[in-house]
Amino acid sequence: MASTLITGIAELTTYDDVRPVVDDAALVVDGDRVAWVGPAHEAPAADAAVDVGGRAVVPGFVDSHSHLVFAGDRAAEFEARMSGTPYAAGGIRTTVAATRAATDEQLTAQVARLFAEMRRQGTTTVEVKSGYGLTVADEARALAVARQFTDETTFLGAHVVPAEHADDPAGYVDLVTGPMLEAAAPYARWIDVFCERGAFDADQARTILAAGAAAGLRGRLHANQLGPGPGVALACELGLVAVDHCTYLTDDDVDALAGSGTVATLLPGVEFSTRQPYPDARRLLDAGVRVAIASDCNPGSCFTSSIPFCIALAVREMGLTPAEALHAATAGGAAALGRDDVGRLTVGARADLVVLDAPSYRHLAYRPGVPLVAATWVGGRPV
Amino acid sequence: MASTLITGIAELTTYDDVRPVVDDAALVVDGDRVAWVGPAHEAPAADAAVDVGGRAVVPGFVDSHSHLVFAGDRAAEFEARMSGTPYAAGGIRTTVAATRAATDEQLTAQVARLFAEMRRQGTTTVEVKSGYGLTVADEARALAVARQFTDETTFLGAHVVPAEHADDPAGYVDLVTGPMLEAAAPYARWIDVFCERGAFDADQARTILAAGAAAGLRGRLHANQLGPGPGVALACELGLVAVDHCTYLTDDDVDALAGSGTVATLLPGVEFSTRQPYPDARRLLDAGVRVAIASDCNPGSCFTSSIPFCIALAVREMGLTPAEALHAATAGGAAALGRDDVGRLTVGARADLVVLDAPSYRHLAYRPGVPLVAATWVGGRPV
Repeated sequence: MASTLITGIAELTTYDDVRPVVDDAALVVDGDRVAWVGPAHEAPAADAAVDVGGRAVVPGFVDSHSHLVFAGDRAAEFEARMSGTPYAAGGIRTTVAATRAATDEQLTAQVARLFAEMRRQGTTTVEVKSGYGLTVADEARALAVARQFTDETTFLGAHVVPAEHADDPAGYVDLVTGPMLEAAAPYARWIDVFCERGAFDADQARTILAAGAAAGLRGRLHANQLGPGPGVALACELGLVAVDHCTYLTDDDVDALAGSGTVATLLPGVEFSTRQPYPDARRLLDAGVRVAIASDCNPGSCFTSSIPFCIALAVREMGLTPAEALHAATAGGAAALGRDDVGRLTVGARADLVVLDAPSYRHLAYRPGVPLVAATWVGGRPV
Repeated sequence: MASTLITGIAELTTYDDVRPVVDDAALVVDGDRVAWVGPAHEAPAADAAVDVGGRAVVPGFVDSHSHLVFAGDRAAEFEARMSGTPYAAGGIRTTVAATRAATDEQLTAQVARLFAEMRRQGTTTVEVKSGYGLTVADEARALAVARQFTDETTFLGAHVVPAEHADDPAGYVDLVTGPMLEAAAPYARWIDVFCERGAFDADQARTILAAGAAAGLRGRLHANQLGPGPGVALACELGLVAVDHCTYLTDDDVDALAGSGTVATLLPGVEFSTRQPYPDARRLLDAGVRVAIASDCNPGSCFTSSIPFCIALAVREMGLTPAEALHAATAGGAAALGRDDVGRLTVGARADLVVLDAPSYRHLAYRPGVPLVAATWVGGRPV
């Protein structure tokens, strides 16, 4: 494999233990990996060279929570919610119906479109969940579609009890843990449960996660989004890699997170798009909790795919510094996926990086809404 | 001039009195003007045709408030403000020093870069203020630079009293209304005053606006941003076209705005970037006030150039519907510049338009932070 020397880096965020941020830096890519990072004047020779013209370089964003496999949109529902006007449609069930009715080609095209959009905004690793099929065939299909784009696929049959099982939620849990899991598991790395009042309770979540583990899937949870609940405590008890939302936390929840090493994944685009209160990320970091930021890109509660936007929100609304917000959206997201090969630009890591149209990562929060991604590199090459 | 038929418009926002929004529409451009709008099946023939593939088309955004002529940035000050840490630097005076020290070429390159960035985000008309020179030569230079890019240039010598005049603010007002105005007027259409505690009071603003009017410049004001004050009432009394910020308004201020026709220009990016409370746009619209949204792009209080971001904030934080927010950022901005040839796509208007990577304008708020501008047309051509 040929090596490439990247020069002209005004500021390089590596998360190297010794020099996490280097000014006037260079980086050498060899194949799909980072081979060298450091000050420009110490850079070794390489087969080729690229000058990024005095821009900042940061690790590619790791979006550890998204729901990209769906059809239709819910713009009218969004408009009604933000305008305070009544709206009769069926929320998530609208998306389930549209997704079931879509062809494989339509679903694949939709994921491709959103993936390309994410790439243009600097995201280089994406977790994608199922959860709008909610039948054996439709959940397996959603994961097969997602698997064409990412290895970080998550089976979320336990997103909500579908209408046809409304009178028999226990029967639906049996379906999820039985034939649906069997069909989904070949395409999934993770299993997830929406553990919230109105969705699945802690006992159901425990059952579903145990079945997933038996099928080789690692667990993660949606929890404590809409109110206090048992999900975060359960995630910590089970030693899950991550628990997502974490908006309503008791002191005991925060202590459990700090003690367990479970990553708290915050999704500020949801609070922006629903006018719910934001989680207090400052409280979590001050307690020693590991924090990730992700998009939760989905058609209902948050249809942003923009990690830079989520970084700006995390600074404005959740009490993170610009440095902490970037870390949460890169190394934090990687931790939330149990990965140490992405979310950093240290020697040996994947050469997934973002060239910013700015001299510093601080501009991601300082210039909210502005498309600042000049180039995204995945596996050592610009895409 | 050749005409072009644009087809494949899923939804066309025209602000035509009869059909302000048309589904399955077409638009004919002739030269730099709109020659026809209506349902696709009624479209006339044209010399050429462009199919936008089922996307929404909206009028180009009219950004009626920006400060683009400056050098340096204040990312470190932003970071300190958002992190709650002390920061000793000089705020606006930092930018004044950097701007005075910059070459003409540096300032021109900076404005060109920000203009291009705005174009990519759908802005087709931009007002640009001076205000970081604050000497006779530097204010005239700033306006001459801005005039290369836009006719909507605003002399803002009365931005703040510069350090060298701190002991003699009256002498500075004499300078602004005398030699500085004389040097600036050939390059400016507007004159503006920052009428706020710590900047210029109502008597000074009245004096400066009168001098500007005598030199042929129309007046506008920054007012009621940081607290209640006399600026909004003064703007209404004088019948100014627009008064900008309008964060702290009394009931009398709202009544005056409703009675005067003066446009209230809201700048939600400022509140986002300073954690100040947002103005209540709902209250203004409900009282019959005309409202515009603009970026206030500047290196200190708000370094966004993104009107789509400001639209999303206006919906989330200021109580506007998606339709009202789009109107405020297009027709509203045009009204704030006394224009009726932009901010709409009616027959005879300038063919300044945005093709969205979305089926509806609602996605500007529904998909916050996502770069949704597929193409920007200025004067009848994609740029």
